[in-house]
Formats: sequence, C-alpha cells, structure tokens
Amino acid sequence: MFLIDTDAGIDDAHAIMMALRHPQHKVIGITCVQGNTKVDQVCRNVFRLLKVCKRLDIPVYQGVSTSLVGINAGPSFYHGNDGFGDAPEEEPQDYSALVQKEHAVNTIVRLVNGNPGKLTLIGLGPLTNIAMAIRLDPDLGKKLKDCYIMGGNYQGKGNITTSAEFNFHSDPEAAHVVLNELGCPITIATWELCLQHSLTWDTYNEIRKPDTHKSNFMLQIEKKTVTKCLNEKWPTYIPCDEIAMSLACDNELSQDSQQVYATVELSGTHSRGQMIVDWEQSLKKPTNVTIVTKLKHNEYLDLLKGSVL
Amino acid sequence: MFLIDTDAGIDDAHAIMMALRHPQHKVIGITCVQGNTKVDQVCRNVFRLLKVCKRLDIPVYQGVSTSLVGINAGPSFYHGNDGFGDAPEEEPQDYSALVQKEHAVNTIVRLVNGNPGKLTLIGLGPLTNIAMAIRLDPDLGKKLKDCYIMGGNYQGKGNITTSAEFNFHSDPEAAHVVLNELGCPITIATWELCLQHSLTWDTYNEIRKPDTHKSNFMLQIEKKTVTKCLNEKWPTYIPCDEIAMSLACDNELSQDSQQVYATVELSGTHSRGQMIVDWEQSLKKPTNVTIVTKLKHNEYLDLLKGSVL
Amino acid sequence: MFLIDTDAGIDDAHAIMMALRHPQHKVIGITCVQGNTKVDQVCRNVFRLLKVCKRLDIPVYQGVSTSLVGINAGPSFYHGNDGFGDAPEEEPQDYSALVQKEHAVNTIVRLVNGNPGKLTLIGLGPLTNIAMAIRLDPDLGKKLKDCYIMGGNYQGKGNITTSAEFNFHSDPEAAHVVLNELGCPITIATWELCLQHSLTWDTYNEIRKPDTHKSNFMLQIEKKTVTKCLNEKWPTYIPCDEIAMSLACDNELSQDSQQVYATVELSGTHSRGQMIVDWEQSLKKPTNVTIVTKLKHNEYLDLLKGSVL
Amino acid sequence: MFLIDTDAGIDDAHAIMMALRHPQHKVIGITCVQGNTKVDQVCRNVFRLLKVCKRLDIPVYQGVSTSLVGINAGPSFYHGNDGFGDAPEEEPQDYSALVQKEHAVNTIVRLVNGNPGKLTLIGLGPLTNIAMAIRLDPDLGKKLKDCYIMGGNYQGKGNITTSAEFNFHSDPEAAHVVLNELGCPITIATWELCLQHSLTWDTYNEIRKPDTHKSNFMLQIEKKTVTKCLNEKWPTYIPCDEIAMSLACDNELSQDSQQVYATVELSGTHSRGQMIVDWEQSLKKPTNVTIVTKLKHNEYLDLLKGSVL
Ligand SMILES: [Ca+2]
Ligand SMILES: [Ca+2]
Ligand SMILES: [Ca+2]
Ligand SMILES: [Ca+2]
Repeated sequence: MFLIDTDAGIDDAHAIMMALRHPQHKVIGITCVQGNTKVDQVCRNVFRLLKVCKRLDIPVYQGVSTSLVGINAGPSFYHGNDGFGDAPEEEPQDYSALVQKEHAVNTIVRLVNGNPGKLTLIGLGPLTNIAMAIRLDPDLGKKLKDCYIMGGNYQGKGNITTSAEFNFHSDPEAAHVVLNELGCPITIATWELCLQHSLTWDTYNEIRKPDTHKSNFMLQIEKKTVTKCLNEKWPTYIPCDEIAMSLACDNELSQDSQQVYATVELSGTHSRGQMIVDWEQSLKKPTNVTIVTKLKHNEYLDLLKGSVL
Repeated sequence: MFLIDTDAGIDDAHAIMMALRHPQHKVIGITCVQGNTKVDQVCRNVFRLLKVCKRLDIPVYQGVSTSLVGINAGPSFYHGNDGFGDAPEEEPQDYSALVQKEHAVNTIVRLVNGNPGKLTLIGLGPLTNIAMAIRLDPDLGKKLKDCYIMGGNYQGKGNITTSAEFNFHSDPEAAHVVLNELGCPITIATWELCLQHSLTWDTYNEIRKPDTHKSNFMLQIEKKTVTKCLNEKWPTYIPCDEIAMSLACDNELSQDSQQVYATVELSGTHSRGQMIVDWEQSLKKPTNVTIVTKLKHNEYLDLLKGSVL
Repeated sequence: MFLIDTDAGIDDAHAIMMALRHPQHKVIGITCVQGNTKVDQVCRNVFRLLKVCKRLDIPVYQGVSTSLVGINAGPSFYHGNDGFGDAPEEEPQDYSALVQKEHAVNTIVRLVNGNPGKLTLIGLGPLTNIAMAIRLDPDLGKKLKDCYIMGGNYQGKGNITTSAEFNFHSDPEAAHVVLNELGCPITIATWELCLQHSLTWDTYNEIRKPDTHKSNFMLQIEKKTVTKCLNEKWPTYIPCDEIAMSLACDNELSQDSQQVYATVELSGTHSRGQMIVDWEQSLKKPTNVTIVTKLKHNEYLDLLKGSVL
Repeated sequence: MFLIDTDAGIDDAHAIMMALRHPQHKVIGITCVQGNTKVDQVCRNVFRLLKVCKRLDIPVYQGVSTSLVGINAGPSFYHGNDGFGDAPEEEPQDYSALVQKEHAVNTIVRLVNGNPGKLTLIGLGPLTNIAMAIRLDPDLGKKLKDCYIMGGNYQGKGNITTSAEFNFHSDPEAAHVVLNELGCPITIATWELCLQHSLTWDTYNEIRKPDTHKSNFMLQIEKKTVTKCLNEKWPTYIPCDEIAMSLACDNELSQDSQQVYATVELSGTHSRGQMIVDWEQSLKKPTNVTIVTKLKHNEYLDLLKGSVL
C-alpha cells in the first residue's frame, strides 16, 4: 500500500506511473510538496498525470509551500516553470475543486495511523511534509511498513550545489528530521545511484517507443529537458525518482547496498544539505538507512518500460 | 480574545493567572509546548493551574514534544523536573482524559481561522507550535489581531548560553519562522526587559502577601526556585512571561519601544538562538517586531498584584 | 613604550597624533595592516601623517594584505579610497623607499622580545598582524606589558553588519586568536563605548579650532566624511581609535569597566565577527579582557584637544 | 629541489626516506609542524630519521604549534604519543641544539624566494606553516615550481570525522588558504587514493623484508600501529604520505587524475575540514588542484621498496 509524496516534476510523473501500473501495489493517496514547482502547481500536475493514467479516483492532498525553516531557495523550475516542461495540457481543466480539503501533513498522519504496519511511504521531493508529520506524530515511523526516498548523496557529489542533491538541499532540516527520527526501514536512492544507472540515449528511445497515451505524455513533458540535454551533449539521460520507485515496487532490484547511519549537514558553507554517511561508525549511532549502491539494471529497465504501457 | 501557547513553568503560571483575571480579555484556549518540562507534563501543569483558578472549562491542547529540527537540548528543568518546582499537588488528579483530541498545531490554525482579526496569540514558551501552524497555514498572521512573545534579547545577553535567551534557544528555527513569516504585529518582551524590571525581594514579598488560593499556589510552586535564588544571593527576582502577558493585557504598559527588523541567528557557535536586531536597517527589510525597552513599572506591578487575588 | 598597529584611516591618524604628543610615551614603531584601505596605501598614509608630525624617524613596517583566512571582504574604503578622505597630499612624495624591509609580523615578534615587559601593543585595525605574531611566537603576550584594542562590541551592536564592528568583522579569526591566546592584559574600546562618547558637533568644532598643521591636516582628510555625516544629519561625530589610544595613554581615563571572558563568533550568519561576552561565566573560562564601559569624558576631550597642538 | 613540511608520523618517515633516496631530487630543508605529535617532538623525530638515513646535514626548522585559528584539536597521537610509535631510540640523543634558529614559516618564504621556479613544496602534515608563509608573502606560489599535498578527500570519506581527512581537519583554515591562494600547480593525494592503493599484508611484508637500517627503523616505529591493525583485522595497510611523495618524486606515477576547483568546508557540523570538489564548475572558479584518482601501482610499489635500501 503506497502513499506517495511528490513535487511532480517529470521524473515524479514516470515514477508515479510505475507505481500505478504495478500489480502488487495500491496507491491510496498522493501528497504534494513544493520543489520542482510551487505546491499548487504540483497538485495540478498530479491531477493531469492521473487523468492520463485514468486514475482520478486517487485522492490528492496539498502540502507545505516552503521549506521547514523557510530559508532555502524556493522551487527549482529545472523542469520548466510548471515542473512539467511547460508543455500545454491538451484539454486544459481546472482541477482545484478536486484537491482534498485536508492538509497533506494531516493526511500522512491519518493514513499511517489508519493502516498500521501496512503503508510504504515514498518521498519523491523535498521531505517537508514528512518531517512535519513526524512532528505531529513522533511515533509515525513505528506504524509505517517502510519508506523509500529519492534524495541525498553518498560520495559528496551535488547536482544543485557542489555538494548537495536537489531534494535534500531544498529542505536540509526536513531531511535531517526524517533520517534521524522516522525510525522505520528507510531505503535511499542517492544522486550517485542515479548517475550510475543513467540511460544511454538508445535505451531512452527504446523506453519511449510505445505509442501509448502515457508514453506520449512523457514525451511531451520531457521535450524541453531532453532537447536541452541533447544540445548540451549530455552522454546519458538521468532518471531519479524512477529509481526510488522501482525499489519501492520491488526491493529485490537492489543488487548492492549498505546499511549505515546517515544524517544531513545543516550548516556548511558548501556542504549544507549534503548527506553525511558515517562509514566508520565514528558517531556510534545505530544504522538508520539502507543506501543502495547498485541496481539490477535490466530488471529496472523492464519496470521503466512496462510503466508506460 | 487570547490564545495562549505555554511551556508551563512558574512564570507561565502567573502570566496565565494574569490573563484569566483581566476583565477585558477572554482566554479561548491554551496550547502546550515542551520547554520548561516535557509536553505531557506541561498539559498536567496547565490543568493544575486552571483548577486553582476554577477555570477547567478552558480547553487545553497538547502540542509538539521537541524543537522544529530536533537538534536542540530538550526541556530545561530549571523550574524543577515538572516545571512547577516539584511541589506535590494537594489533591493529585489524572487530567489525561481532559486533554483535547486535536493537536495544538491544528488548534492554532482552526481558532485563528475561526476568529479572523480577533485573536491575540501569546507565546510564553519555545515557538515550535506557532511555527508549525504557520507552515500549515502561511496566511495565519493575516487573520490574527496581534502576537505577544516572551523571548529573545536585544543586547546579546543570554540566560541559557552566553548569547541566547531560553525560549529562543530552545527552538531557534521556530523563532526564526515566527519573526520572519508571521506577518501580524508582534510585540516582544526580551530577556533584557525582564532584567530591567526584575523585582526587589520586598516587592516580591508584597505581591505574594495576599492569602489567596492563587497566591499560595504560586508560593508552593515557586518555593524551590526562590530558595535557590536567596541561597545564591540574587539581588532581585526576575519574572519573564508575566511581562509579555502584561503587555498583551494592556499595550499601554509599554513606556519605550522600538520598531525594528529582527531575526534569529541559526548557525553561530556561541550566538545560535540570539535575536539579531537590525538597528541601522543594513538588511533593508521592513520592520517586523516591536521591542519594548521600558515598561510603566508601577502599572505593571499593579497587574502582578491583582492577578493573584 | 608603544608599538602601534594601524590600518590608517582618519581616526587612526588622530589617535597616532595623540600618542606622539603624549609626554609619557614613546612610539618605537608603527606596523601597517589592511583595513580602511590596502596595506601599501596604509603605509603611505602613515608616512604622510608622520611627516605632518615631523616624526619620520619612527620606523614603519608593512604587514599582511588580507585577513588570516582570506575569506572576508577586503578594505572598507569608508574613509575614501585611500583611507584619508582622498584629500590630495600637498607635497606628494614617494615614501616606498622608507618602508622597512622587515615584515610587520616579524617586527612585532622582534620588538616584543627585545623589550620584555615594557611594550604596550595598540591595535587600531583588523588584528591580523598581531594574530600572526602570536602564531610565530606563542609566548608573545608573556613579554608584553599590555595591549589596547579598538574593536568589537558588548551589546551586539554592529557598524558594518547588524551585529559586528568593522575591525573585528574584517578579521574575526584574528580577533579570536588575539582575545583567546595573547595572554597579557587587554583593554578593549568597543563600538558601544565609541557611540557613548561620540562628540556633539560643537565639541568637534572646538577640537578642530586650533590653526595648527596637525589640526588642518585632520580637517583635510576628514572633510569628505564630515560632509557626509552632516548631509545625513548624524547627530554626533564618532571617534573610534582615539578612544583606544586615550586609554593606552592614560588608563585612568577608564571610569567604569568590567573584566570578563570574551571571544569572537566565527560562524554566525548574522553574528560572524560579533564579540561574545560571557557575562554569567557560563563558559567557565578565566577572564581575558577589560571592557571599558565609560570614560572620564572631560579628560578624554582634553587629550583629543591637546593632540593636535 | 624539495622543501618538505612534515608532522613526522610513521608515514612521513617513509615518505622522507623516499625523497632522500631519489636520485633526481635534492632535499634542501625540512620544516616541522604539529599534527601527529607536538611540534618539538616532530623536530626530534625528523632528526632521528635523518640520523638513520645519515643525512643530519639537512637543516631542520621548527614551525607552528597549533592550527591557524587555534580552535581544532591538537596532535592526534594516532602513531603513539611521539608520532613514532613510542619506540625508544636506540642511542637517545638531545637534538635541540640542531634545530635551526629561523622559524619554519620564515624559512619557507626565504627558500622559495631564494630559488625562484625551482622548488617543489611538499606538505605531509597540516598546512599551517605553508598558509602562514602565504600570508607573509602573497606571491609565494608564483616562485614555486609546484606543490604536492597529502590531504583531503574527494568522495566525502573521512578518517578522523565522518567527512574529513586528518591533515585537512587538523587545520581547515590553513588548507583553505593553501588551496585558494597558493597559485602554483598543486597535486593532491587524497584519503580515497590512499585507500585505493593500500597494501595487502603480503606486499607490506615484502617491502619491509630487506634487513637494512632504514627498513628496521620503519619496523620499529611501525610496530605499535601494525600490531593494532592486525589485532583489529584490517584487511590492508594504508600508507598515506608515501603516496604524495611518490608523486612528487615522479609525477608520471599518476595514471588517472582530474583538474578541478577544490576548496575546504570551514563551517559544517559534520563536514568541517572536508575537501569540496566543484565537479560541475558550479562555482565558476578556475581549477586550482590536480586530484590523482589512480596511481601506476607497480611503479609506486617499486619506489616504496627502493626507499628503504
Ligand atoms: Ca521529484
Ligand atoms: Ca514560559
Ligand atoms: Ca583603524
Ligand atoms: Ca604526515
């Protein structure tokens, strides 16, 4: 049973498709958080995606509109102003009436408490909603099955600053709260794992070949980004949230991993938001996350391909 | 109309008495936050106090049990383990069934939205609940009448570290959120103001002279602290929350004040939690707080005295 | 016996005049440090000043050109590009051949070791040279008589940022080294002391009235700054280095003072460079500085007046 | 022409042997800095080593005894209290009269200026002496041939904290100054490179097999550390300074490397002292270091083996 927290960029879209398509998992709600774009736009994006997937039955909740402490930069607009490559919707619609009345943070608390031991929480954006839910219910993690997160790094490689990954950097304090206080099994798909499993352009094209609604939707919203990548001669295409979701769908996809204590640097000049891994147990803390360092690449590709059918 | 957020130490007790006794104000709820003791004990203290004041009709809500980011020290236990000088309750009672079901953070959002423009929010403890409420409702301040806060400092004097005051130091990030994002008129009673208006022991004794239930209750819970002060030969007794509350009751008590932009230092080695005042407008920010630098001392004493009758 | 370390702004000029004029003190050298302008310009300023005072016999040494860690802003140019109000020299001269070959940092070490127990070290600029000298000779302070510093603050008031005074902010790490490691008696003239003893414009005019070479020189180099102050309607004129020097000349000028442990905040967002005073001995450190909180104002004015005759 | 700055631990000893043995290089001086032990003990260690190598003709200079800002932990004592495994000297000797009078920092400035374009500066300890020399002569780097440094990390792996390598962590500010301001070609042997080229115990034993004075000396001073490693079942032995020195001796040993801009984190809670690598040029700074990511392992082993003959 999946509860997905998303900032609805392009990779979130594909990741959510993957979850909706998976035969063994049911998505019981989607909570929205600012990140790739403003939080109200994130909600719109999710509805647009659900419509393509014919799953407007899934309840969508609006969450927080800034980081926990409010001092980081706002939305990134890397995937366009609207997070979906600024590709116009074919039949534009006002989805605002469809947004649930309940605040996403309260939703997380309610759904976790209502389904003790059954829920897999999946964080595809900045972790603000989830951190807030932990504050409202310090025992949240005890009632979760597990948690999968796209975010952080384990070799100090950054994609938004020299040393920090976007989701963690967008709300370092929230990531700090989640890693240190959630307390259920957490599996992390880091930026380095994304780099390692980036796709050749041939593979990318193969994944997008099927002439389906979903595949065409992905092509539309991805167009701006892909064009940019090709112009800048990026050697590969780098999915992110898809990797965290593939692990959530099937934990067996993890080929190599390490259980460690990890936390988040909050105060560095360059390293604010960097994930700190205590490889040598110098902090004497119990392990709190599983860092996946290698995927079963082919099985992962199969999930990617199947998700747009 | 008052909504009081408290960590229920001794000075909170007297301050709440002051509010309950004031003819022009109605207390519509009390929200509890960790600070002087653990949050569940804070709730118990509030009930105990309300019983003494014969006001168990006022709803009490339990709030967060740690700071926003979870990295500061926990409760201070300065006023004893239970925040009330470890003075045994005369007729001990289990108040747990009386705690409202709603989380204090949601209460703040609900009551502010239900009474637009009418509510005075009074922060007597670490500002975690209020900061969380701002995150759930970014427009909270627009619907408040005003806000009074005991906390911070304006000359770098600390009472818990070299440079920080207890309430702000207990949750610097929350104080940062409240000062920078609340957006309604905020009046601050700083540690330096408390020092300036501390009481001679003669005055203290005069205030506690009336043989009333309330006065005797204060004497009981204060005993440990007062004994310590006298042993250590403190020249004066230093009320804190009483000063913020007296200003909330009657803003005319402010004799001198300055409107400034103030924020909170989050990352200093020594100055984490210090209030930063931009006296020279070097940050070019609009003013956000009124710092009271002098009270009408006699009128303030009258309020103190009247509150235990 | 005085060794003066200066960044040769306008107030340094007047302060050095005060030292040269004082019957009981001998200036055995002047070391230059960047601050109000680049370090080579500081040297030129000092020569220009010494020429006016007919004291080109005093050896002048060039010191460091940046802060200890090299991460702070460079010269301030508050007193004009050249630190002397950009007032052209009447008979311009190339002083470069007069600069001593020895580096100022080595000079400090040599002169202190050559005059054990006799030297008063006076810091009128950022403390980089002095901190470096401590690194080269950790026992430097044991061989000094005492040290007077213009810099820092004791109530969190800043003049270059919200919370930091210019000299300390220009090299917080150096100030940290000097306060924590020098080990001889240190008297500090803080920014708040300067504010408290600022001059009414009447007093200022009276000080500058004598038609002497020195007074006219001060009027020339001060012109730009004074004009700016008057345009901006500053209520008073604020000498700085003069206050530290007056205390060095006659320690009896101190009317009120406190011996405390003080250090420097290195890592704050707003408070980097702020002086941290441990009023309540919470750090359990031995006292290391005397903070003067009040001068004998009239005696101080007499020194100011006499120094330009 | 080599100028070696060392904190004289075990690996420094072997590294210096390597330099002394190399046919193409001449060591013109050794400067000492605190790190593996106190700075006066570092000097003694260097003399003891030079005696074994019959090279007491090389001048040895004592340098600074603490970090630049003085706020980090002192010596590590990882290689025993004396940095040389507390192995007693066979014929103990008082070397203090042999220490040059000149301070190491002034020596660096003098030797670099006296041999413009010819000197290779090799940093085997905390970089305090070298940073100080840069402060005394900002153009130091322009007159150096190049610089080799053992220190830092490029994947966030720490050996003294979660995220920092010992030499950089011992003086982060000095490392910051050297990387950002030296200005000559800098080659860095990081902790990760050391890990990658650590030695199997078979290889280690092979290197120490020759029954020479030097080899036996290494066995003596290494005994404590090696015993500890074997007890704790370390899979390999990890030389450090030897790697930087091997690159200084023969730059062709570098098989893979990257030219990047790198700096040092000064203010992180966990990452203070971590080397920050700007892989994606997000800081838009010119490259300042060459990070070697792979050695020609066999050639490196040959140097190791040859150095004790
Ligand atoms: Ca995302
Ligand atoms: Ca309180
Ligand atoms: Ca000055
Ligand atoms: Ca070393």
